[in-house]
Amino acid sequence: MSNDHLYAVIMAGGIGSRLWPRSRAATPKQFLDLASERSMLRETVDRIRPLVPVERILVVTGEEHRETVLGQVPGLPGENVLLEPAPKGTAPCIGLAAVALLARDNDAIMAVFPADHVIADAAGFRRAIAAAAQVAEEGQLVTLGIAPDRPETGYGYIRRGELLGTYDDHPVFHVQCFAEKPDEARARTFVESGEYYWNGGIFIWEAATILWEMAGLLPELYGELQSVAEVWDAPECLPRLHEAWQALPQITIDYGVMEKAQRVVTLPVDIGWSDVGNWAALSALLAADENDNVVRGPGRVLAPGSRGSYLYASAGRLVVAVGLEDFVVVDTPDALLICPKDQAQDVRDVVRELQAQDLQEYL
Amino acid sequence: MSNDHLYAVIMAGGIGSRLWPRSRAATPKQFLDLASERSMLRETVDRIRPLVPVERILVVTGEEHRETVLGQVPGLPGENVLLEPAPKGTAPCIGLAAVALLARDNDAIMAVFPADHVIADAAGFRRAIAAAAQVAEEGQLVTLGIAPDRPETGYGYIRRGELLGTYDDHPVFHVQCFAEKPDEARARTFVESGEYYWNGGIFIWEAATILWEMAGLLPELYGELQSVAEVWDAPECLPRLHEAWQALPQITIDYGVMEKAQRVVTLPVDIGWSDVGNWAALSALLAADENDNVVRGPGRVLAPGSRGSYLYASAGRLVVAVGLEDFVVVDTPDALLICPKDQAQDVRDVVRELQAQDLQEYL
Repeated sequence: MSNDHLYAVIMAGGIGSRLWPRSRAATPKQFLDLASERSMLRETVDRIRPLVPVERILVVTGEEHRETVLGQVPGLPGENVLLEPAPKGTAPCIGLAAVALLARDNDAIMAVFPADHVIADAAGFRRAIAAAAQVAEEGQLVTLGIAPDRPETGYGYIRRGELLGTYDDHPVFHVQCFAEKPDEARARTFVESGEYYWNGGIFIWEAATILWEMAGLLPELYGELQSVAEVWDAPECLPRLHEAWQALPQITIDYGVMEKAQRVVTLPVDIGWSDVGNWAALSALLAADENDNVVRGPGRVLAPGSRGSYLYASAGRLVVAVGLEDFVVVDTPDALLICPKDQAQDVRDVVRELQAQDLQEYL
Repeated sequence: MSNDHLYAVIMAGGIGSRLWPRSRAATPKQFLDLASERSMLRETVDRIRPLVPVERILVVTGEEHRETVLGQVPGLPGENVLLEPAPKGTAPCIGLAAVALLARDNDAIMAVFPADHVIADAAGFRRAIAAAAQVAEEGQLVTLGIAPDRPETGYGYIRRGELLGTYDDHPVFHVQCFAEKPDEARARTFVESGEYYWNGGIFIWEAATILWEMAGLLPELYGELQSVAEVWDAPECLPRLHEAWQALPQITIDYGVMEKAQRVVTLPVDIGWSDVGNWAALSALLAADENDNVVRGPGRVLAPGSRGSYLYASAGRLVVAVGLEDFVVVDTPDALLICPKDQAQDVRDVVRELQAQDLQEYL
């Protein structure tokens, strides 16, 4: 097949609060060089680029991040940065991208993924997307199913049903159901069954198909999107968009569409995927020293007697961590986090507490 | 007795490396507000002041700290700041103070103590000093014996001998011997015997007597001190002092004089003394919150799930410490220390490592 109608839609609107204090309102996770020397957004673009040229890459983000996106992605046309007036969950974000693509290309196929994931096997990822695009051309909603390597309780799962067919050596299955984040016992059953995959939030479908599904399943959202689409290239588009977004409730594509639509399929992959959901997950991805510590950042770190810890020092700072075991230490110019790795998930609660105390300067 | 000849000599030349990263070369421990709202030096002055007016208080420190001392001790006459050309241990420091006092007052009695200790019972401290001054008038070298409340292995001990006499209700004993820092088993025996006291480094004696002892026990030091004394008020005093100090070896008053002199006595006290030797010792002195945490500093601290820890945030900084148990966290504008309380003593090794790595900016 030709990929001329294949577009990448990179969702870069998250706040990454579990990666606080590096991830902040002004520079959330996806704009940071967390896992490599380059920002996660840049890595995400570079990963898809050999398959989708930059002219067909859309980045959806908040207005305040437009310059950051353009600065981090050389060659990205300005009109490919799609600005959401407010974060309203993945369904409106994807719907808006679909509208933008249909305004360009009636046959647009969109591969949608977050800007803040790590995928070790980039070539495998691109092969999977190319195969999924063929399935999408048949009007299916394709979601990548991440082969689980552990009974993770932090992710949703996809249960596969019967085989739909094989595309470029990739078997594709009907989705039997989606399962919310399970407890550990259930997660273990899931993994042992061989029938469950992690829901990594990577979707491939035709722009027309997803809008058609929204028309049936999310009519309110669809109505607002239509009203925006009708004035797409006109001056009144921007005020219309703002008005539309103000009215919308928060809704995810999983809950709003995927769990209810009919033609939902999954294409399993084993591509070294991680959502880098928290500091412990990030640490697990990075090379450790002889004491099993991961030491990062432009600043200096001394770690006498520390083991199994992630230690980050910002520019000009010296971090001395004595006798820490399996901790995360993230030291930024104004804020410091010290947290056991097994509580890294709860950093979100810290951010909520800062919000509750109105400590805006640290958010 | 009248106290007109009683002088206080406050030794403020230490570097307090175990209190790094707040204690730094430019602002060592004694100039910091570690245990209260005021600097330790200021607290030390205020503690003795009701007994010894500021005109008879001498502060011995390094040249680089002269302005700090005058700024922290209002009313201290400039000539009462005695500048050591280099730190050479307590014996030269005390010898120099004795020379300075004898130049003013042939009958001077000097109460010598460090600027960086905490004493909860200030009135009891002053009563003990006043009583010790009477003993000193008899030509004795008096050292306060701190009643031990635990088998501490970090201090030297004094073993008392026979009773010399009782002075203002204070029994005073001959010193049988000094014991170096013991292991824990020996320390326990010491404490259980009731015959041992901690050597807190607080001495009371006549200036003439201590110089006379130095003449016999530390003739080299005595010779240099005499050469300084002979030109005390002349312009050549300062170069002479520098020359003398250059030649001197490091020597403590304990090793150089106390362990060898004949007329050494101890006056036991129970006055809530602490040398604030490290962050754990400091923490133990301060009021803890409902989670047994001691939270200090001008910055903000959040400590969800942390217990028994000392947490310090400097101005403008936010410290979030999750799930720490019995740790010390000291966050300064450029350097951070995280250390288990039971390894607080080893912070000195961190400072040595910084010196070895020539990281001057953090010293």
